[in-house]
Amino acid sequence: MDQSESRSRDPNAPSENGISEQDFQYKKVDDNNNNTDKKEEEKVESIEKIFESKEVPSWKNQLTFRAFFVSFILGILFTFIVMKLNLTTGIIPSLNVSAGLLGFFFVKTWTKFLEKSGLLKQPFTRQENTVIQTCVVASSGIAFSGGFGSYLFGMSEVVAKQSTEANDGQNIKNPSLTWMIGFLFVVSFLGLFSVVPLRKIMIIDFKLTYPSGTATAHLINSFHTPRGAKLAKKQVRTLGKFFSFSFLWGFFQWFFTAGDGCGFVNFPTLGLKAFENRFYFDFSATYVGVGMICPYLINISLLVGAILSWGIMWPLIEDRKGDWYSAEYKSSSLHGLQGYRVFIAIAMILGDGLYNFFKVLGHTAFGLYHQIHDKNSRLVLPVGGRSSSPLDSLSYDDQRRTQLFLKDQIPIWLAIVGYITIAIISAATLPHIFPPLKWYYIVVIYIFAPTLAFCNAYGCGLTDWSLASTYGKLAIFVIGAWAGSSHGGVLAGLAACGVMMNIVSTASDLTQDFKTGYMTLSSPRSMFVSQIIGTAMGCVISPCVFWLFYKAFHDLGVPGSQYSAPYALVFRNMAILGVEGFSSLPKNCLTLCYVFFIAAVVINLIRDIVGKKWARFIPLPMAMAIPFYLGAYFTIDMCIGSLILFIWEKIDKAKADAFGPAVASGLICGDGIWTLPSSILALAGVNPPICMKFLSRKTNAKVDAFLTS
Amino acid sequence: MDQSESRSRDPNAPSENGISEQDFQYKKVDDNNNNTDKKEEEKVESIEKIFESKEVPSWKNQLTFRAFFVSFILGILFTFIVMKLNLTTGIIPSLNVSAGLLGFFFVKTWTKFLEKSGLLKQPFTRQENTVIQTCVVASSGIAFSGGFGSYLFGMSEVVAKQSTEANDGQNIKNPSLTWMIGFLFVVSFLGLFSVVPLRKIMIIDFKLTYPSGTATAHLINSFHTPRGAKLAKKQVRTLGKFFSFSFLWGFFQWFFTAGDGCGFVNFPTLGLKAFENRFYFDFSATYVGVGMICPYLINISLLVGAILSWGIMWPLIEDRKGDWYSAEYKSSSLHGLQGYRVFIAIAMILGDGLYNFFKVLGHTAFGLYHQIHDKNSRLVLPVGGRSSSPLDSLSYDDQRRTQLFLKDQIPIWLAIVGYITIAIISAATLPHIFPPLKWYYIVVIYIFAPTLAFCNAYGCGLTDWSLASTYGKLAIFVIGAWAGSSHGGVLAGLAACGVMMNIVSTASDLTQDFKTGYMTLSSPRSMFVSQIIGTAMGCVISPCVFWLFYKAFHDLGVPGSQYSAPYALVFRNMAILGVEGFSSLPKNCLTLCYVFFIAAVVINLIRDIVGKKWARFIPLPMAMAIPFYLGAYFTIDMCIGSLILFIWEKIDKAKADAFGPAVASGLICGDGIWTLPSSILALAGVNPPICMKFLSRKTNAKVDAFLTS
Repeated sequence: MDQSESRSRDPNAPSENGISEQDFQYKKVDDNNNNTDKKEEEKVESIEKIFESKEVPSWKNQLTFRAFFVSFILGILFTFIVMKLNLTTGIIPSLNVSAGLLGFFFVKTWTKFLEKSGLLKQPFTRQENTVIQTCVVASSGIAFSGGFGSYLFGMSEVVAKQSTEANDGQNIKNPSLTWMIGFLFVVSFLGLFSVVPLRKIMIIDFKLTYPSGTATAHLINSFHTPRGAKLAKKQVRTLGKFFSFSFLWGFFQWFFTAGDGCGFVNFPTLGLKAFENRFYFDFSATYVGVGMICPYLINISLLVGAILSWGIMWPLIEDRKGDWYSAEYKSSSLHGLQGYRVFIAIAMILGDGLYNFFKVLGHTAFGLYHQIHDKNSRLVLPVGGRSSSPLDSLSYDDQRRTQLFLKDQIPIWLAIVGYITIAIISAATLPHIFPPLKWYYIVVIYIFAPTLAFCNAYGCGLTDWSLASTYGKLAIFVIGAWAGSSHGGVLAGLAACGVMMNIVSTASDLTQDFKTGYMTLSSPRSMFVSQIIGTAMGCVISPCVFWLFYKAFHDLGVPGSQYSAPYALVFRNMAILGVEGFSSLPKNCLTLCYVFFIAAVVINLIRDIVGKKWARFIPLPMAMAIPFYLGAYFTIDMCIGSLILFIWEKIDKAKADAFGPAVASGLICGDGIWTLPSSILALAGVNPPICMKFLSRKTNAKVDAFLTS
Repeated sequence: MDQSESRSRDPNAPSENGISEQDFQYKKVDDNNNNTDKKEEEKVESIEKIFESKEVPSWKNQLTFRAFFVSFILGILFTFIVMKLNLTTGIIPSLNVSAGLLGFFFVKTWTKFLEKSGLLKQPFTRQENTVIQTCVVASSGIAFSGGFGSYLFGMSEVVAKQSTEANDGQNIKNPSLTWMIGFLFVVSFLGLFSVVPLRKIMIIDFKLTYPSGTATAHLINSFHTPRGAKLAKKQVRTLGKFFSFSFLWGFFQWFFTAGDGCGFVNFPTLGLKAFENRFYFDFSATYVGVGMICPYLINISLLVGAILSWGIMWPLIEDRKGDWYSAEYKSSSLHGLQGYRVFIAIAMILGDGLYNFFKVLGHTAFGLYHQIHDKNSRLVLPVGGRSSSPLDSLSYDDQRRTQLFLKDQIPIWLAIVGYITIAIISAATLPHIFPPLKWYYIVVIYIFAPTLAFCNAYGCGLTDWSLASTYGKLAIFVIGAWAGSSHGGVLAGLAACGVMMNIVSTASDLTQDFKTGYMTLSSPRSMFVSQIIGTAMGCVISPCVFWLFYKAFHDLGVPGSQYSAPYALVFRNMAILGVEGFSSLPKNCLTLCYVFFIAAVVINLIRDIVGKKWARFIPLPMAMAIPFYLGAYFTIDMCIGSLILFIWEKIDKAKADAFGPAVASGLICGDGIWTLPSSILALAGVNPPICMKFLSRKTNAKVDAFLTS
């Protein structure tokens, strides 16, 4: 429902896009997602009392074939959506609600059908639903943590050629289906094994909140109450309607996109002058939907960033053309205006990232210190809000949940053996894939990784905030600098980023799933198995989907094209910065970078000092930085989405809360899934028949003269 | 509400467009328009009982300054709308509901405001409302009967140059503000005087139904009940919303129309191939609104006609190019494909028109015969449905209405003196305006005119169907043939058409108004004065608005342009046919014309034979003929409007019935009034900045190569 729900749980919400990084969203999760459940809770004190009569299946029975079949289908669906978002803007909202709704819908329909024909052997339980949710999120999560829009695609020649530094052979690794699948398989499972032994400490002893995991559990619990099921059915119908609309709209748009600069995505809605500065509404159903899911503050921050950069700064810097940078460079050259756009964005992202890194680390240390110091008194946690009751006065819910959580154990030796085995395999194979990434770099990463994974999982439990991509950026700088520019440091840095991100992000994911499992009485074993199966699916699905995009759209990664993969360039340039230093930046760019780095830190500091009341009027630096490089068009889409939701809430708050997320999901999913037929059409060489072109009056007169002559 | 409401009352519904010519609509008028009133009536037997306590103002007090001020404003508004419709497709739906709603709204707001400030001297009565309605309809009616989209503009050089016959100087009269205003003033008042003496016979003695006048009276009566006023307020709000939307949409579209073939009006929604055959949705809010007002059968008939002509016949005829007609002719030449389009459409319109002319004449004769023969028994009228009760058993409503209707008399000598004076002035001045129109032609017309005016007013009372434009066409043929080709017969014919149409149409209008006045207790005197003032306004407003269009849009009357004024060419070619015979038609065209003429008669015959139950599945020939010449695009708009209404009625019938007409009026009015700023922009030389162009993939590649070179 709220994208922040998935801040860490769903790697779909990358931390570097600023969408999943702020505390203010925590509140919103509870406000929105638990909307229906809260009402249930008001009436009935205990959720588990409602479910008391329902038998909890054994962990093996929670893992059904139908669950994994549905997960596989939904995994493909969401991978397409995430991949599209990865490659267009990098802003990925939480798709948990849609995954939950659709998973519930498919299995419920199937079991109803079986029930009517008298063939139903096993009823649909919330445990099975949790298994589906876990599996889908794990599999589509790989589409994000696999770095197809960031580090992995940043290794390719297309992106490398955009800068003059480090574009030699040893710093380039073009995508290929085989090595991508291999790479993902050897790095994606480590995180899972690293946190398995700690689950009891995190969930039972520390009682960490994991707001996203909790919200998901509430959602699933609500689906399985009669009232919740009825609402879910209506929500699914709404989702279906907007899914169809959005799909058909994508289809309709396609016909008018013969050639570059054609079609609705190039509609100069606000005039040609604004269009040149990338201010236009591009009729994207996806980003209108994303805007409806993201909190208002995010959308406003994006807009503020867009106006600051494309409205004010870039035009001013462009006036300095010939002075600050040579007029010979094309606007897409990193030595020209593009350099300012990319590096100032990086500075702001790093400033925000580092500030929050230290903040969360501080919280983590503080929390841990209290946990250990006051082991018996179970102090209220500094962040997270929910106070935990002393052991002896455990509520009925907690008693029952703890009992079932502790029933199925995962042996520690399995975790240790698994981790070491995979680490050895991966240290042996990775240098073959990326020659500059020596085996000892990998060993060093794997020694530190469990600690970082624990930190991330713990911090995430406190703040609902996964730092996966910040850890990844650290790895870029550390390993990149260690390897050095003459030994393919850029490629090594990017590869190390991938290794680190995968471990850290899957670790926090799994812990979130344990929390969800805990609250839905699902067995930790079934969560673990489901996550492993989902990850395995993702390791195959994601590269295949990416491959489809890569083959179908030949301008993938080219700035200004439909699939420009903006973060691929950003990640590669971070690696170049780490390896080569600041020498390549254009004039005054470094100064501006410092200014924005500091500004990001200061704004965050102010946000934390003034308190929640005022913080919601102060824009988020991370969100502001995104349009710096991309332009304002998607922020306008998103603001329109926000506006629709705002008006809807004014008219009918209850309905907007219940159906807004379904409408948004429908818009996102329909447009996202349209990329499947669209890429197949592109592969088959079927080109759209018409070009909808936008010309100035002057050019139009020229073209008319040319066409009639 | 229903366009047929205005079949004769509102000249906006021209009889030649097939929209206002069929009996089945009668039913619909009663179904729709009296929707709210019927409910009132169910509860209270007599309407006049409700209004018993309200004093009826004297006829002079019914004519207030505020009423005429509002009428003037609304007259300008509706003249713009009618003019736009005249010049684009010639399909003009009834705007009575919008006129009624807006008139009520403005005066009500004004009186409420005065009431609150304690300055109100005279309350707003339904009599005053009737005065406004009458005045607005009379003034905007001139925009139709003035022939700016038909005979009058058909005299111009632009239209004349499209055919090779009769395009010499003596058959051409270019528009000019002065002679147009003069012409309208000398011909528009004759009709009023010709029927004034007969009003008592028609309304009281014959008790003619005048369904449109009755429906309007119901509407006005309902506004002045408390419940009706509340509903009207809501309807006005809806109208306002869609008015703004439609206006802004028109404004938005404008930006993208730099140059020919640019903008949304050229959007190849269904593909380029379909676009070439004029099948596309052109995003016109006006015609979507028109489609919502027109009955389903009209829209389906239009679509059937479009598919038959542009989908099947024209492509087949085009294949005969070089055989049936010389390949040298451009597609807009009347000797080429355009000839088939125009003359087959004319044949079908004439076939339908003549069939119905004789049908209504028959009804009129039959009805008159019974009226006179069974003078005392007051037989049930053959058409019209409502049985009239014997004199002695008059209902309370009828007693009160008759009493008030007979109170204020208009002296017969005034009518006779008025008629003769104007006839002399007009016979003296018209030959100066149109040299080929000799004074004795005019005298002949004026001798026959009162009879025809009576026939039309009487037939209209029976069938709700004004034959004005059919009488006009008769005048074209008779006077044209009399003058002969060597003496400017074409111009004489067109001018005679104008004289005849104006007399006949205003005559039936005024009688309808008398009926409305009768039912709202308005004085016949105030109706007559209001009609005279409204007509005088129209005689100035309409030429001025036309002049604005003429000066602002330089391609007025050019086939294929935005304002192609299709009926100007049709009327001129009828005149040419009348004067020159069939010699100029391309090969086989005459045969096809005969076929379609006979088909139109036969279809009408079948419709009358099979009865109402089946007739509603048989398309109307008149409606089918319209897209023959114009193309399918506006039928697609209208069918979308129909579809929207259809779905709305499925979801919520009551709401659709109450607010559908308001939505449609809003869409039509907003887009229509946008033409005011748009023509001012054009006059001021402000051109739109962007061209939204649609190119095939191949052409686009060429253009891209041209632009980059």
